[in-house]
Amino acid sequence: MSYKITVIPGDGIGKEITDSAVEVLEKVDEKFGLGLSYTYKDAGGTAYDKFGTPLPDDTIEACKASDGVLFGAVGGDKWDNVDPALRPEKAILGLRKNLGLYANLRPVKVADALVEYSPLKPELVKGVDLVIVRELIGGIYFGDKCESEQHNGAERAWDLENYSVPEVDRIAKLAFETAKLRRGKVTSVDKANVLATSRLWRRTVAKVAESYPDVELNNLYVDNCAMQLAIRPTQFDVIVTGNLFGDILSDEAAVVGGSIGMMPSASIGTSTSLYEPIHGSAPDIAGKGIANPMGTILSAAMLLRYSLHEEAAAKAIEAAVDKALADGYRTPDLWKEGFQKANTEEITKVICERI
Amino acid sequence: MSYKITVIPGDGIGKEITDSAVEVLEKVDEKFGLGLSYTYKDAGGTAYDKFGTPLPDDTIEACKASDGVLFGAVGGDKWDNVDPALRPEKAILGLRKNLGLYANLRPVKVADALVEYSPLKPELVKGVDLVIVRELIGGIYFGDKCESEQHNGAERAWDLENYSVPEVDRIAKLAFETAKLRRGKVTSVDKANVLATSRLWRRTVAKVAESYPDVELNNLYVDNCAMQLAIRPTQFDVIVTGNLFGDILSDEAAVVGGSIGMMPSASIGTSTSLYEPIHGSAPDIAGKGIANPMGTILSAAMLLRYSLHEEAAAKAIEAAVDKALADGYRTPDLWKEGFQKANTEEITKVICERI
Ligand SMILES: CC(C)[C@H](C(=O)O)[C@@H](O)C(=O)O
Ligand SMILES: CC(C)[C@H](C(=O)O)[C@@H](O)C(=O)O
Repeated sequence: MSYKITVIPGDGIGKEITDSAVEVLEKVDEKFGLGLSYTYKDAGGTAYDKFGTPLPDDTIEACKASDGVLFGAVGGDKWDNVDPALRPEKAILGLRKNLGLYANLRPVKVADALVEYSPLKPELVKGVDLVIVRELIGGIYFGDKCESEQHNGAERAWDLENYSVPEVDRIAKLAFETAKLRRGKVTSVDKANVLATSRLWRRTVAKVAESYPDVELNNLYVDNCAMQLAIRPTQFDVIVTGNLFGDILSDEAAVVGGSIGMMPSASIGTSTSLYEPIHGSAPDIAGKGIANPMGTILSAAMLLRYSLHEEAAAKAIEAAVDKALADGYRTPDLWKEGFQKANTEEITKVICERI
Repeated sequence: MSYKITVIPGDGIGKEITDSAVEVLEKVDEKFGLGLSYTYKDAGGTAYDKFGTPLPDDTIEACKASDGVLFGAVGGDKWDNVDPALRPEKAILGLRKNLGLYANLRPVKVADALVEYSPLKPELVKGVDLVIVRELIGGIYFGDKCESEQHNGAERAWDLENYSVPEVDRIAKLAFETAKLRRGKVTSVDKANVLATSRLWRRTVAKVAESYPDVELNNLYVDNCAMQLAIRPTQFDVIVTGNLFGDILSDEAAVVGGSIGMMPSASIGTSTSLYEPIHGSAPDIAGKGIANPMGTILSAAMLLRYSLHEEAAAKAIEAAVDKALADGYRTPDLWKEGFQKANTEEITKVICERI
């Protein structure tokens, strides 16, 4: 048995957090005999500085040739004045498109020990356990666009929001499959009272639902969903939505969860998938050794689960993170009086010891 | 002096809440000698049932001929199976388009007495005082759309997101003018890292900003704004954004504010403007006399302020509502042990007595 993992540290704290996650992966590898090997590649601003492009072909090729990609974070003020087409975030969009990463899974599950970190009242957050399934390579993100044209005597710009039946069908199936393994509830989010694309979305999801009689389907308008996530987030199991609505709602849901530094994500492709924490590259604290690596560590656990089907190893990591928190360890972003402060290196060690 | 107000009760609780607001308007009229007169018109499901259309021409004409429109709410399950083009919410979209209601203003100001009703922790909500300025007759809401077509061998649907420079210019100016009278801070929300429309939006807003040296401008991506509204809502003064992002963010902001039943809105037109509470028609409690009319009453205050320039009368209403709350009166949606429960009629009386 052997698996090839491509590691893309990226920019800012990317190196520290991926180093930490790899250390944890090596620990489970030792225990479960997984045979993991790592190839490091550049992307983002760092790649732009070295090669003049945020996403070298070589990085794409390495990803395609591997069993899973562990991604840190990209971006930073440093590249604010770079040509928009070459900015760090183009690496993310490029990887999504080139690897066909059609679904972004964002679990928001609040550990009891972390309930108090949510801006919401603890009684609303306790027990939250939802997954957002966001379509990732369609919609208005990748539709035709026009930066500037004359129209009715004025300058205008436009972007085409669009979805095809096969695109919606694929993401809906993934959502229903996900719900089947969870609490059996799918909430599909759209704006069908205004958008034609949403009406196609809604009727396609309804069709997929017919094959899943044991899963309950609800439709919610995006504005209402933005409300409900703040009013009663425990009502949700699986939320499925398009690229743009997913971008907004998954960030809102992450905040509800409380500790952004803890949140992992998986971007599922047809062959290779990519795993990354949801937080950014935090250039202000880069290199200080104080970044919270747990979002990346939990992303590595998702890699083990979804790409390598090594469920036991995935669970071992998740349990170790829970245990570290329950034992009172907190990275600086989460630290409060009465807890044990642990920097990046220390929390990594604490987690490894619990595996 | 005399002013003509068109009242559109609409569906569900619409009649009760507009009756209540008109009672309060009559009270300030008595006190300030405004010379208000009222014309009642139908819209929404009620209009559909009577006339076969949710928005009779007669209603549009009456609105155009008046100095301001007071709107209740429309919609209800009853009309779920009506042809989409004739559903109650088409009345809202039709009024926006026909009256040229280009800007929706949604103040979110949390009275100290109501801080505890927010799902957010009280310390995050105390002092929130922001306004969302949403563009209301452009963007993807009114762009070309296609319900179904064949494209690359599959069925797809599409909607065109688009903004012209004059559209953005107009809404941006309103936002800066609004900020000048407040704390001098505008946050423009877009998705300029992905959408061409957002890039035009951002450069047009930047241009408008040059004429307002005393107002500070910040740009925020919509996903980040969805987070910040939940993390630290007090950071915002005026938020300006497009139609779709505004729909989502203003509902999220309303929830943060806590008591949806209290929130007013103004939809500003080039000649007539329209005022309505942000909550829906609540068919489940319609006719029971227990609806919270305060969102409508505060909308009537906005009508006095923006359409009639009767600032003193507007302030008198707002002060009376604050006083009613401070004196411990609560409608059923807000009632808790230790407070005085007041139904629609009772709270209206309590507010009138305080004018
Ligand atoms: C960086 C940006 C293009 C990206 C997106 O909008 O998808 C990010 O916000 C995300 O959610 O991963
Ligand atoms: C009813 C609907 C079309 C409308 C909108 O999306 O604008 C509503 O959500 C609102 O915000 O007033």
